[in-house]
Amino acid sequence: MTRSFDIAAAAVGPPDSAALADAVARQSRLTKPAGALGRLESVGIQLCGIAGCCPPPRPVPAAVAVFAGDHGVLAEGVTPWPQEVTGQMVANFVAGGAAISVLARQAGASLTVVDVGIATDLSVLGLDGAPGLRRRRVRAGTGNLAVASAMTEEEARQALDVGTETASELVAGGARCLVTGEMGIGNTTPAAALIAALTGKPPAEVTGRGTGIDDSTLARKVTVIERALVLHAAALADGPLAVLAAVGGLEIAALVGFIIGGAAARVPVVVDGVIADAALLVAASLVPDVVGFCIAGHQSAEPGAATALDHLGLQAVLDLGMRLGEGSGACLALPIIEASARILGEMAAFDSAGVTEKN
Amino acid sequence: MTRSFDIAAAAVGPPDSAALADAVARQSRLTKPAGALGRLESVGIQLCGIAGCCPPPRPVPAAVAVFAGDHGVLAEGVTPWPQEVTGQMVANFVAGGAAISVLARQAGASLTVVDVGIATDLSVLGLDGAPGLRRRRVRAGTGNLAVASAMTEEEARQALDVGTETASELVAGGARCLVTGEMGIGNTTPAAALIAALTGKPPAEVTGRGTGIDDSTLARKVTVIERALVLHAAALADGPLAVLAAVGGLEIAALVGFIIGGAAARVPVVVDGVIADAALLVAASLVPDVVGFCIAGHQSAEPGAATALDHLGLQAVLDLGMRLGEGSGACLALPIIEASARILGEMAAFDSAGVTEKN
Repeated sequence: MTRSFDIAAAAVGPPDSAALADAVARQSRLTKPAGALGRLESVGIQLCGIAGCCPPPRPVPAAVAVFAGDHGVLAEGVTPWPQEVTGQMVANFVAGGAAISVLARQAGASLTVVDVGIATDLSVLGLDGAPGLRRRRVRAGTGNLAVASAMTEEEARQALDVGTETASELVAGGARCLVTGEMGIGNTTPAAALIAALTGKPPAEVTGRGTGIDDSTLARKVTVIERALVLHAAALADGPLAVLAAVGGLEIAALVGFIIGGAAARVPVVVDGVIADAALLVAASLVPDVVGFCIAGHQSAEPGAATALDHLGLQAVLDLGMRLGEGSGACLALPIIEASARILGEMAAFDSAGVTEKN
Repeated sequence: MTRSFDIAAAAVGPPDSAALADAVARQSRLTKPAGALGRLESVGIQLCGIAGCCPPPRPVPAAVAVFAGDHGVLAEGVTPWPQEVTGQMVANFVAGGAAISVLARQAGASLTVVDVGIATDLSVLGLDGAPGLRRRRVRAGTGNLAVASAMTEEEARQALDVGTETASELVAGGARCLVTGEMGIGNTTPAAALIAALTGKPPAEVTGRGTGIDDSTLARKVTVIERALVLHAAALADGPLAVLAAVGGLEIAALVGFIIGGAAARVPVVVDGVIADAALLVAASLVPDVVGFCIAGHQSAEPGAATALDHLGLQAVLDLGMRLGEGSGACLALPIIEASARILGEMAAFDSAGVTEKN
């Protein structure tokens, strides 16, 4: 049986060139100086290419999917936060008290939380049957990437399928825009490892302070990633799926599938911070056309985010000095993306509005 | 009789220090790493200082006021757009087809257009009794600042009053946040002149291409401003009101009054691009405390905007390469400002959510 991820990957195509051309022409007729709306214009054109029509449909309602997983690399002391916080935060998401809960509510977006690899059994936290929570755990946290593969390739494929299926279910349920979210204590370590492996940049350049670690923890984190890249050198030469399995994370693998699932469904995918940027690097290595369906919602303060976005040729919509993850930065970009669509759909043209053009 | 502007100017006070302290403490207890929400945290704290309570009220509904005026300096050939476009765009605002019409509608903000000095008689455009339009014309466009004062100090004071009264009427009508907007063909010339005069920077450094002028028009525009600053040297040494009258604009003067009116009413004022930044420079020269009530909505692509915001010590929320004016960039920042308030009001704390803090 062909896996859901593979079906989605094969379905991703290029943007619609006729709709792109229509959008460029329409921007030039609207009652504003050429180019005066900056990023709103380029995002609007991109939305037309994704949807295959101009003006594009409004990207509402949006759906945020937060994939959660734990990380064996915590054994190396890369963060002062205990592993139990991953599950506790899932409870906080579901209860509506986390940042992404607040921001999704404001944006009118649904919030789906997917356990793809949390170490804690969520039943112990009283989350059986919690609304908006999907239990798709592939394994109870990854292995320690500093001493072994984070997961097997088969486990990575299972997590990819979880992501793809989540995307297609949300689109089938009416979502017209997908937002990447994640939770996993320690996950800036695998993200930095993936970014270093896939861009060729040294770990010291792409590794950041995550939740705000001190100098000695940061130095340890960089060393852990350097060691991992040596340990997994053979896998790193073996293609993106092998890289993902060796130094990735279960929630990161699910994000790869989610992004590709959104592109296959031809809806815009708003990519959050450094964890999602790392996932997009993997996705783009597997399916290059996926990048045209993605909008970098914000520029994370983590250094690897800038490296990844540069490598992908993407410019973030927002730069608010944020480094929380969860999908928070991407969610904040939603009104600007919606505005890009509304400008093309609702603004008057020079001739119809009776406005004189410049001499 | 004391003028409405003078009453408002005297009413502006500092932010509430107790509310600021409460907000700083509350940010540290919310379920996120310290500082991880970046600008959302600092804006949220500012909103508490403005409102005098923590959490702050949500800044909704917002009200956008677009002040429109014409500019005698058009005689110098500083723009290829004809003066009649100012009135035509007012008709477009009222009909709902302009960018600010679209963006205000999306944000759920009211849109009020105020004729404070359009050259065209709006009655000729069939706008008598148009909803959302206020007729407060002080004079039919300014004088040519390259050869005479743009307006008298008495006219500037009348325009200040128009702005202040618009602010207080909108707040009395239920607005909990004010957004600066403007329309005036040629108004990047007086804005650059004001920014040069009030920051001491050379005109060539703060003058931009506005709607997208060519090299020779830009060179002419810079020369016009240089000449104006020499011509009006005595006024420039005579204080901010004299500077405003000499090289400002009627809609810019109204924006000065509007910003100070918002601060007097203790509501956040979201400042749009370079025209509004110039107005805020004047406002801050008159009433320094006003800056604490202002949020720079976006970083205009015009070079004078960066100069003005640096001088004021403000950092823009958005940087989308926009240079349209009308209030468009500020309007796009509204959901982020609302999110800053909601984070403080709706996020759970570590103890109440049962989330373990870092070791």
